[in-house]
Amino acid sequence: MTQHENAALKIWRAHFDAWTSKDMDTAMTYIADDIVCDAPAGRLDGAAAYRNFLEPFSRILTGVKPFASFGDEKTAVGIYEAQTFPVPHAPGAECVTVVDGKITHSRFIFDRTPFDAARRSQG
Amino acid sequence: MTQHENAALKIWRAHFDAWTSKDMDTAMTYIADDIVCDAPAGRLDGAAAYRNFLEPFSRILTGVKPFASFGDEKTAVGIYEAQTFPVPHAPGAECVTVVDGKITHSRFIFDRTPFDAARRSQG
Repeated sequence: MTQHENAALKIWRAHFDAWTSKDMDTAMTYIADDIVCDAPAGRLDGAAAYRNFLEPFSRILTGVKPFASFGDEKTAVGIYEAQTFPVPHAPGAECVTVVDGKITHSRFIFDRTPFDAARRSQG
Repeated sequence: MTQHENAALKIWRAHFDAWTSKDMDTAMTYIADDIVCDAPAGRLDGAAAYRNFLEPFSRILTGVKPFASFGDEKTAVGIYEAQTFPVPHAPGAECVTVVDGKITHSRFIFDRTPFDAARRSQG
Protein backbone atom coordinates (compact mmCIF):
# COMPACT_ATOMS: atom_id res chain seq x y z
CA MET A 1 0.00 0.00 0.00
CA THR A 2 1.26 3.45 -0.92
CA GLN A 3 1.18 5.71 2.15
CA HIS A 4 2.02 9.35 2.79
CA GLU A 5 1.68 10.55 6.36
CA ASN A 6 0.27 13.94 7.20
CA ALA A 7 -2.56 15.59 9.07
CA ALA A 8 -5.65 14.82 6.95
CA LEU A 9 -4.41 11.37 6.03
CA LYS A 10 -3.85 10.44 9.68
CA ILE A 11 -7.44 11.39 10.50
CA TRP A 12 -8.80 9.55 7.47
CA ARG A 13 -6.81 6.42 8.29
CA ALA A 14 -7.83 6.42 11.97
CA HIS A 15 -11.47 6.72 10.90
CA PHE A 16 -11.03 4.04 8.21
CA ASP A 17 -9.31 1.62 10.59
CA ALA A 18 -12.11 2.09 13.11
CA TRP A 19 -15.10 1.62 10.82
CA THR A 20 -13.54 -1.29 8.96
CA SER A 21 -12.98 -2.89 12.40
CA LYS A 22 -16.72 -2.31 13.05
CA ASP A 23 -15.86 0.13 15.87
CA MET A 24 -18.33 2.81 14.83
CA ASP A 25 -18.16 4.71 18.14
CA THR A 26 -14.45 5.34 17.62
CA ALA A 27 -14.99 6.00 13.91
CA MET A 28 -17.52 8.72 14.69
CA THR A 29 -15.04 10.62 16.91
CA TYR A 30 -13.35 11.74 13.66
CA ILE A 31 -16.58 12.97 12.05
CA ALA A 32 -17.78 16.59 12.29
CA ASP A 33 -21.34 16.98 13.55
CA ASP A 34 -22.24 18.85 10.36
CA ILE A 35 -20.44 16.52 7.95
CA VAL A 36 -21.65 16.53 4.36
CA CYS A 37 -21.23 13.15 2.71
CA ASP A 38 -21.66 12.58 -1.02
CA ALA A 39 -22.51 8.90 -1.40
CA PRO A 40 -23.53 7.08 -4.60
CA ALA A 41 -27.23 7.34 -3.72
CA GLY A 42 -27.02 11.06 -2.93
CA ARG A 43 -26.02 13.62 -0.34
CA LEU A 44 -26.18 12.92 3.39
CA ASP A 45 -26.25 15.80 5.87
CA GLY A 46 -24.96 15.46 9.40
CA ALA A 47 -23.24 12.85 11.55
CA ALA A 48 -26.40 10.81 12.25
CA ALA A 49 -27.16 10.36 8.54
CA TYR A 50 -23.51 9.49 7.93
CA ARG A 51 -23.55 6.82 10.62
CA ASN A 52 -26.82 5.40 9.28
CA PHE A 53 -25.11 5.03 5.91
CA LEU A 54 -21.78 3.60 7.05
CA GLU A 55 -22.73 1.37 9.99
CA PRO A 56 -24.82 -1.14 7.99
CA PHE A 57 -21.98 -1.34 5.47
CA SER A 58 -19.43 -1.96 8.23
CA ARG A 59 -21.58 -4.85 9.48
CA ILE A 60 -21.43 -6.75 6.16
CA LEU A 61 -17.67 -6.19 5.84
CA THR A 62 -15.57 -9.36 6.06
CA GLY A 63 -12.23 -7.75 5.18
CA VAL A 64 -10.53 -4.84 3.50
CA LYS A 65 -7.54 -4.62 1.19
CA PRO A 66 -6.03 -1.11 0.98
CA PHE A 67 -4.51 -0.18 -2.39
CA ALA A 68 -3.33 3.41 -1.90
CA SER A 69 -3.83 6.44 0.30
CA PHE A 70 -2.50 9.95 0.03
CA GLY A 71 -3.16 13.26 1.68
CA ASP A 72 -1.99 16.70 2.64
CA GLU A 73 -2.92 19.03 5.47
CA LYS A 74 -6.56 19.30 4.41
CA THR A 75 -7.47 16.51 1.98
CA ALA A 76 -7.02 12.75 1.99
CA VAL A 77 -7.92 10.02 -0.47
CA GLY A 78 -8.05 6.28 0.01
CA ILE A 79 -8.53 3.50 -2.54
CA TYR A 80 -9.28 -0.02 -1.32
CA GLU A 81 -11.20 -3.21 -1.90
CA ALA A 82 -13.99 -3.87 0.54
CA GLN A 83 -14.74 -7.55 1.00
CA THR A 84 -18.36 -8.02 2.03
CA PHE A 85 -20.79 -10.81 2.67
CA PRO A 86 -22.87 -10.27 -0.49
CA VAL A 87 -20.08 -8.87 -2.72
CA PRO A 88 -16.65 -10.44 -2.17
CA HIS A 89 -14.66 -7.83 -4.14
CA ALA A 90 -16.02 -4.28 -3.95
CA PRO A 91 -13.50 -1.57 -4.88
CA GLY A 92 -14.11 1.75 -3.19
CA ALA A 93 -12.66 5.24 -3.04
CA GLU A 94 -12.97 7.95 -0.42
CA CYS A 95 -11.97 11.59 -0.62
CA VAL A 96 -12.27 13.59 2.59
CA THR A 97 -11.78 17.15 3.77
CA VAL A 98 -10.45 17.55 7.32
CA VAL A 99 -10.84 20.71 9.40
CA ASP A 100 -9.55 20.92 12.99
CA GLY A 101 -9.11 17.16 13.21
CA LYS A 102 -12.59 16.25 12.00
CA ILE A 103 -13.86 15.06 8.62
CA THR A 104 -16.21 17.79 7.40
CA HIS A 105 -16.80 16.44 3.89
CA SER A 106 -16.60 12.90 2.62
CA ARG A 107 -17.12 11.47 -0.82
CA PHE A 108 -17.64 7.72 -1.21
CA ILE A 109 -17.32 6.22 -4.68
CA PHE A 110 -18.23 2.60 -5.36
CA ASP A 111 -20.30 0.61 -7.80
CA ARG A 112 -23.77 -0.11 -6.43
CA THR A 113 -24.52 -2.58 -9.24
CA PRO A 114 -23.21 -5.80 -7.59
CA PHE A 115 -24.87 -4.87 -4.26
CA ASP A 116 -28.22 -4.31 -6.00
CA ALA A 117 -27.81 -7.62 -7.86
CA ALA A 118 -27.08 -9.44 -4.58
CA ARG A 119 -30.14 -7.89 -2.97
CA ARG A 120 -32.34 -8.94 -5.89
CA SER A 121 -31.01 -12.50 -5.85
CA GLN A 122 -31.80 -12.73 -2.13
CA GLY A 123 -35.38 -11.64 -2.90
CA MET B 1 -8.17 20.88 -6.68
CA THR B 2 -5.49 19.39 -4.44
CA GLN B 3 -2.37 18.67 -6.49
CA HIS B 4 1.00 17.10 -5.72
CA GLU B 5 3.46 16.96 -8.57
CA ASN B 6 5.69 13.97 -9.14
CA ALA B 7 6.47 11.30 -11.69
CA ALA B 8 3.41 9.01 -11.62
CA LEU B 9 1.03 11.89 -11.09
CA LYS B 10 2.39 13.78 -14.11
CA ILE B 11 1.79 10.75 -16.32
CA TRP B 12 -1.68 10.17 -14.90
CA ARG B 13 -2.62 13.83 -15.38
CA ALA B 14 -1.31 13.96 -18.94
CA HIS B 15 -3.34 10.86 -19.75
CA PHE B 16 -6.40 12.22 -17.95
CA ASP B 17 -6.20 15.61 -19.69
CA ALA B 18 -5.95 13.86 -23.05
CA TRP B 19 -8.83 11.42 -22.73
CA THR B 20 -11.12 13.96 -21.10
CA SER B 21 -10.36 16.22 -24.11
CA LYS B 22 -11.38 13.27 -26.35
CA ASP B 23 -7.81 13.04 -27.69
CA MET B 24 -7.52 9.27 -27.38
CA ASP B 25 -4.43 9.01 -29.60
CA THR B 26 -2.46 11.20 -27.20
CA ALA B 27 -4.04 9.48 -24.19
CA MET B 28 -2.86 6.08 -25.42
CA THR B 29 0.79 7.23 -25.61
CA TYR B 30 0.82 6.98 -21.78
CA ILE B 31 -0.58 3.43 -21.71
CA ALA B 32 1.61 0.31 -21.62
CA ASP B 33 0.84 -2.26 -24.33
CA ASP B 34 0.22 -4.87 -21.65
CA ILE B 35 -1.82 -2.66 -19.31
CA VAL B 36 -4.14 -4.42 -16.90
CA CYS B 37 -7.23 -2.38 -16.13
CA ASP B 38 -9.67 -3.25 -13.35
CA ALA B 39 -12.95 -1.62 -14.35
CA PRO B 40 -16.34 -2.01 -12.61
CA ALA B 41 -17.47 -4.66 -15.10
CA GLY B 42 -14.26 -6.68 -14.76
CA ARG B 43 -10.64 -6.93 -15.80
CA LEU B 44 -9.40 -5.69 -19.19
CA ASP B 45 -6.11 -6.96 -20.58
CA GLY B 46 -4.02 -4.94 -22.99
CA ALA B 47 -4.08 -1.51 -24.58
CA ALA B 48 -6.71 -2.36 -27.21
CA ALA B 49 -9.21 -3.53 -24.59
CA TYR B 50 -8.44 -0.45 -22.50
CA ARG B 51 -9.09 1.88 -25.43
CA ASN B 52 -12.33 0.05 -26.26
CA PHE B 53 -13.44 0.71 -22.68
CA LEU B 54 -12.36 4.34 -22.36
CA GLU B 55 -13.00 5.77 -25.82
CA PRO B 56 -16.81 5.35 -25.78
CA PHE B 57 -16.85 6.95 -22.32
CA SER B 58 -14.75 9.88 -23.54
CA ARG B 59 -17.28 10.44 -26.36
CA ILE B 60 -20.22 10.95 -23.97
CA LEU B 61 -18.20 13.28 -21.73
CA THR B 62 -19.41 16.88 -21.64
CA GLY B 63 -17.10 18.10 -18.87
CA VAL B 64 -14.99 17.09 -15.94
CA LYS B 65 -14.53 18.57 -12.46
CA PRO B 66 -11.36 17.40 -10.70
CA PHE B 67 -11.60 17.09 -6.91
CA ALA B 68 -8.19 15.80 -5.86
CA SER B 69 -5.12 14.05 -7.20
CA PHE B 70 -2.04 12.73 -5.47
CA GLY B 71 0.87 10.54 -6.37
CA ASP B 72 4.42 9.45 -5.77
CA GLU B 73 7.06 7.98 -8.05
CA LYS B 74 5.03 4.88 -8.85
CA THR B 75 1.37 5.39 -7.94
CA ALA B 76 -1.17 8.11 -8.65
CA VAL B 77 -4.80 8.58 -7.71
CA GLY B 78 -7.37 10.99 -9.10
CA ILE B 79 -10.87 11.77 -7.86
CA TYR B 80 -13.21 13.75 -10.11
CA GLU B 81 -16.74 14.23 -11.34
CA ALA B 82 -17.35 13.20 -14.91
CA GLN B 83 -20.17 15.10 -16.57
CA THR B 84 -21.72 13.01 -19.31
CA PHE B 85 -24.60 13.15 -21.72
CA PRO B 86 -26.75 10.50 -19.96
CA VAL B 87 -25.49 11.11 -16.38
CA PRO B 88 -24.75 14.77 -15.54
CA HIS B 89 -22.86 14.09 -12.29
CA ALA B 90 -20.81 10.88 -12.25
CA PRO B 91 -18.09 10.78 -9.57
CA GLY B 92 -15.11 8.64 -10.49
CA ALA B 93 -11.79 7.52 -9.05
CA GLU B 94 -8.67 6.22 -10.74
CA CYS B 95 -5.63 4.59 -9.18
CA VAL B 96 -2.74 3.88 -11.53
CA THR B 97 0.69 2.27 -11.40
CA VAL B 98 3.34 3.86 -13.62
CA VAL B 99 6.50 2.08 -14.78
CA ASP B 100 9.01 3.76 -17.11
CA GLY B 101 6.58 6.54 -17.98
CA LYS B 102 3.67 4.26 -18.92
CA ILE B 103 0.56 3.25 -17.01
CA THR B 104 0.84 -0.52 -16.46
CA HIS B 105 -2.15 -0.94 -14.15
CA SER B 106 -5.27 1.14 -13.85
CA ARG B 107 -8.25 0.84 -11.57
CA PHE B 108 -11.43 2.75 -12.41
CA ILE B 109 -14.08 3.09 -9.71
CA PHE B 110 -17.49 4.55 -10.47
CA ASP B 111 -21.13 3.70 -9.93
CA ARG B 112 -22.63 1.94 -12.96
CA THR B 113 -26.16 2.28 -11.56
CA PRO B 114 -27.09 5.67 -13.10
CA PHE B 115 -25.58 4.68 -16.46
CA ASP B 116 -27.59 1.45 -16.50
CA ALA B 117 -30.72 3.40 -15.55
CA ALA B 118 -30.12 5.90 -18.38
CA ARG B 119 -29.65 3.05 -20.87
CA ARG B 120 -32.88 1.39 -19.75
CA SER B 121 -34.83 4.65 -19.99
CA GLN B 122 -33.56 5.13 -23.55
CA GLY B 123 -34.85 1.67 -24.43
